[in-house]
Amino acid sequence: MPHSSSGPSHSSDASRFDIERYLKERAALVQNALDRTVVEHRGPGAKLLEAMRYSLLAGGKRLRPVLALAACEAVGGKPQDALGFACALEMIHTYSLIHDDLPCMDDDDLRRGRPTNHKVYGEAMATLAGDALLTDAFKVLARSPASRAGAPVLLEVIAELAEAAGSAGMVIGQALDMLSEGQPTDLATLEYLHARKTGALFLVSVRGGGLLGGADRTQLDALTVYGRALGLAFQVIDDLLDVVSSTEQLGKRAHKDDAHGKATYPALMGVDKSRQFAVQLKEQAIAALSGFDGRAEPLRQIASFVVERSL
Amino acid sequence: MPHSSSGPSHSSDASRFDIERYLKERAALVQNALDRTVVEHRGPGAKLLEAMRYSLLAGGKRLRPVLALAACEAVGGKPQDALGFACALEMIHTYSLIHDDLPCMDDDDLRRGRPTNHKVYGEAMATLAGDALLTDAFKVLARSPASRAGAPVLLEVIAELAEAAGSAGMVIGQALDMLSEGQPTDLATLEYLHARKTGALFLVSVRGGGLLGGADRTQLDALTVYGRALGLAFQVIDDLLDVVSSTEQLGKRAHKDDAHGKATYPALMGVDKSRQFAVQLKEQAIAALSGFDGRAEPLRQIASFVVERSL
Repeated sequence: MPHSSSGPSHSSDASRFDIERYLKERAALVQNALDRTVVEHRGPGAKLLEAMRYSLLAGGKRLRPVLALAACEAVGGKPQDALGFACALEMIHTYSLIHDDLPCMDDDDLRRGRPTNHKVYGEAMATLAGDALLTDAFKVLARSPASRAGAPVLLEVIAELAEAAGSAGMVIGQALDMLSEGQPTDLATLEYLHARKTGALFLVSVRGGGLLGGADRTQLDALTVYGRALGLAFQVIDDLLDVVSSTEQLGKRAHKDDAHGKATYPALMGVDKSRQFAVQLKEQAIAALSGFDGRAEPLRQIASFVVERSL
Repeated sequence: MPHSSSGPSHSSDASRFDIERYLKERAALVQNALDRTVVEHRGPGAKLLEAMRYSLLAGGKRLRPVLALAACEAVGGKPQDALGFACALEMIHTYSLIHDDLPCMDDDDLRRGRPTNHKVYGEAMATLAGDALLTDAFKVLARSPASRAGAPVLLEVIAELAEAAGSAGMVIGQALDMLSEGQPTDLATLEYLHARKTGALFLVSVRGGGLLGGADRTQLDALTVYGRALGLAFQVIDDLLDVVSSTEQLGKRAHKDDAHGKATYPALMGVDKSRQFAVQLKEQAIAALSGFDGRAEPLRQIASFVVERSL
């Protein structure tokens, strides 16, 4: 059977076009679901919901929820099977940004190109908006239809998500990040920190999406290798972008790692080695998916997208 | 068959003794479980776990978790069936105290007779300790053995807990409390606020315990009436204690409602009418349990205990 009209010379452009469209469509799906999940209301306390929506619907790439949908699809599930989970991921990611930006934490004024939550709503309301997004995430997930996977699998996803976000994952990562400011750090310590601060939520995005899509044990192991490599690659690139970009390009304050005395991959390995490391991790992530068919193409392309956004 | 040696004149003392022992034993059960759930560790980030344990294991009556156990037992369950849920409740209650005490919120220095979390660990770590307790609560609950009730019931309990604690419950209650400081308030508004700020967590304690114990629809409806009345009674008494107690007696700053310009039941109804209202609510709570047998005795006694602690 002949190929479609695009010849080999166009195929890389074609696949690039496809992943961009995929990312856009899936991000729109998530955005719509979030908009229906955290709804405005006019009663007393409307300010709280307004503050939650201000940060939640501010855009961003929706990388974690899209990864969850892509992992679900890679094992034969439908995006809808993981959509509640995808919303929960973005709500938890957003809460972590709001709290990390607080004056007592990283004290940032700019996020996703807009003033940070506490700059608009004050510290108390920003703290509460974060608390509410985190809590509501578990309501959304527990109430999401678990048609494909069933209740025991949904419980496992809730447990893994809470573990990834809590005192063994994201929160301790942020604590370590603060405690280590200005301290001498080696690569092993930096990797330990990032595996928790950002890696854990990436990993659970992929694993949870897989579980909800009906992944078997072998598939889940492969997704775990993929998710771990991708999360680390993301962080290496994030560190690189902080060094080489402007605040305008990032939509958040640039060069702040250096200003906070934070250890980074470019600081420890240099810029070129960091880039090589990120490319290696990307290849490792893609290789982990060798047993998957074409339905894993979005996951493969996302790995390239994450790394190439800076190269 | 003859009664035991205690005659009628001693029976009220005897039942009083029993409930005190019950409260003590169940609180100890919860305390031990919490101690095993949030464990110290010596690695990097040990400070986070230390801060979490500082507030979590500081004592307190453990009223919410004990209510959960009592509701579970009232419908024929064993305390063990609701123990994970009980831990989750206390972890969420503790997180809410840590965040409410922060300088940007109520700015309190004293809690449960000790310096507040941020006074000891700093604002950033206190914020993170609260975040971690909230998140870990859902891990504990999702991983708790759902032997009696099964996975779908556990999912329902998770959803109800998140709803009670989140933007439709405790968090919006705290937001309303802050937004209404110094504002003129009527009784209906005050009740609306407290149904969310404290009532929702009381209600879900009772309902969740009942669900995990295998409550049928009729029992659950009765527990709902009980839990709603008890939660409101607790708040009325809490307002009264703030007026009539010393800081030493409370273990937290007294007279702070007035200092913050907060509306309270004694301010709106007077002290005597508030007491009468609390007693009415207690009777309403106990009456709701008329269809239950002796296994609901702890719940009945807890209602009396909650109201009589101030009378």
